[in-house]
Amino acid sequence: MIKPRHPTVAPLLACAHDLADLAGAAIRPHFRRPLVVEDKGGHGGFDPVTIADKMAERAIARHLRANFPGHGIIGEEYGTSGAASAYSSGVPPRYRWVIDPIDGTRAFICGLPTWGTLIGLLDGNKPLLGLMDQPITGDRFWSGPTTSYMRQAGGKTRRTRTHACPSMGQAIVSSTHPDLFAKGRQQAILEAVKSRTRMIRYGGDCYAYCMLAAGFIDVVIEPGLKIYDIAALIPIIERSGGRITTWDGGSAANGGDVLACGDPALHAALLELISATDKRPIEG
Amino acid sequence: MIKPRHPTVAPLLACAHDLADLAGAAIRPHFRRPLVVEDKGGHGGFDPVTIADKMAERAIARHLRANFPGHGIIGEEYGTSGAASAYSSGVPPRYRWVIDPIDGTRAFICGLPTWGTLIGLLDGNKPLLGLMDQPITGDRFWSGPTTSYMRQAGGKTRRTRTHACPSMGQAIVSSTHPDLFAKGRQQAILEAVKSRTRMIRYGGDCYAYCMLAAGFIDVVIEPGLKIYDIAALIPIIERSGGRITTWDGGSAANGGDVLACGDPALHAALLELISATDKRPIEG
Repeated sequence: MIKPRHPTVAPLLACAHDLADLAGAAIRPHFRRPLVVEDKGGHGGFDPVTIADKMAERAIARHLRANFPGHGIIGEEYGTSGAASAYSSGVPPRYRWVIDPIDGTRAFICGLPTWGTLIGLLDGNKPLLGLMDQPITGDRFWSGPTTSYMRQAGGKTRRTRTHACPSMGQAIVSSTHPDLFAKGRQQAILEAVKSRTRMIRYGGDCYAYCMLAAGFIDVVIEPGLKIYDIAALIPIIERSGGRITTWDGGSAANGGDVLACGDPALHAALLELISATDKRPIEG
Repeated sequence: MIKPRHPTVAPLLACAHDLADLAGAAIRPHFRRPLVVEDKGGHGGFDPVTIADKMAERAIARHLRANFPGHGIIGEEYGTSGAASAYSSGVPPRYRWVIDPIDGTRAFICGLPTWGTLIGLLDGNKPLLGLMDQPITGDRFWSGPTTSYMRQAGGKTRRTRTHACPSMGQAIVSSTHPDLFAKGRQQAILEAVKSRTRMIRYGGDCYAYCMLAAGFIDVVIEPGLKIYDIAALIPIIERSGGRITTWDGGSAANGGDVLACGDPALHAALLELISATDKRPIEG
């Protein structure tokens, strides 16, 4: 008898849905209410953390400790509990949950429903499952072991499939904010992509990656992502037919400068464009 | 006995709600479905018009012709039916509806629920009533004769009030797209505003103006708006306590370069900043 490499993912996926329900219940009462916004500072910008974030974190951590006490948790607000040093054995557990209760805090603060709760699960260093939930609109996106799905409020669950768009000139691009691209190389790459594609829209946050999985956006390009910004989205995109890597073609599982495309041929062409832009002297 | 200057606005406001219901019903089936996107060209950019837009327009025009046959209609897709030349008398009617079925077509195409249906009513050249509806999230914002309101899906109607934020350094700014600001003067003004405020978020479309009315955004600044982008939003903002004008302090009722602030003191300070930026020599 051959043992399956993973135990069935069903209980893990069920747990991801439970975590999303708990996070949504914790966050929903704080949306469009006067907020306590802390400025965590750090990168010189405005980095807001809300009460809602913290309430959701706590609910998620409590549920995971009760149900999967041996699993690790990685996230902006969970410290290094996902790192080897956090474990008495010095070895990280096989399964680590990668959590961002509110991805798109700026949208949240502005009262706009384009933020989402991200719940990823790593098996070793490999994304195993991912889920994005928007508890105001009722949209939920997630990956099964081989396919991805979306459910709209009051709607049926359906498979997500990316849009075939091999032509750069036809591509619809999304990125959270142009100012996240540093002056010089990153701005040159953004300009190169913008000048060759059909249109770019800003302000998508995690929703943009899910809309890429669902076939409505062709490209998402973003610099400097953290692991918790992207780990949950990788299996959703890949199991919808898309391709997501860093700008040099490596794994995006730890974050970094990320390029996601619905069409693998478009992804290859854009990696080439990025590489060609890197070889050009930068003006200014 | 003094005659009221307007007949009661109640039937007009009821009509605005009916038009929003009709538009929502026409648009909803087309959201996140494969779209026929026409490129109307024009300004050299990508100017998509969807089937959903046209279906909503038709429903709106039919309802207005049946209920207020003497009223005019102004909108991107209605031609000049609001202009004097469109009327056999050569005189435009007292009441003209200013309609944009889908403000934020880019968001719509990308599958993001941040677009909205805009329904404004002019009495002469003055905005009398305005309504913004988002038929996916179920958010609706509108102005009564002196106050403004919002209703969330499944929620109670409540008054909207802008946020007191006299300090530029604390202000949260929104704008639909930085590339709409032309190189030179407009970009210099955007940079001046960005460098003095707390944060800027892109991608709001009409939602951003409503979130300003509701107290979650402090500033919206945008160039080159059309009358149908803004007429419906002016009474919503003003009757929530905010101030909205063109960048030179004139009426925004016909569109143009628009500045909206929740706090009138902040509005005055930003008009001054714009004027000072105009007097500076532009680099490059």
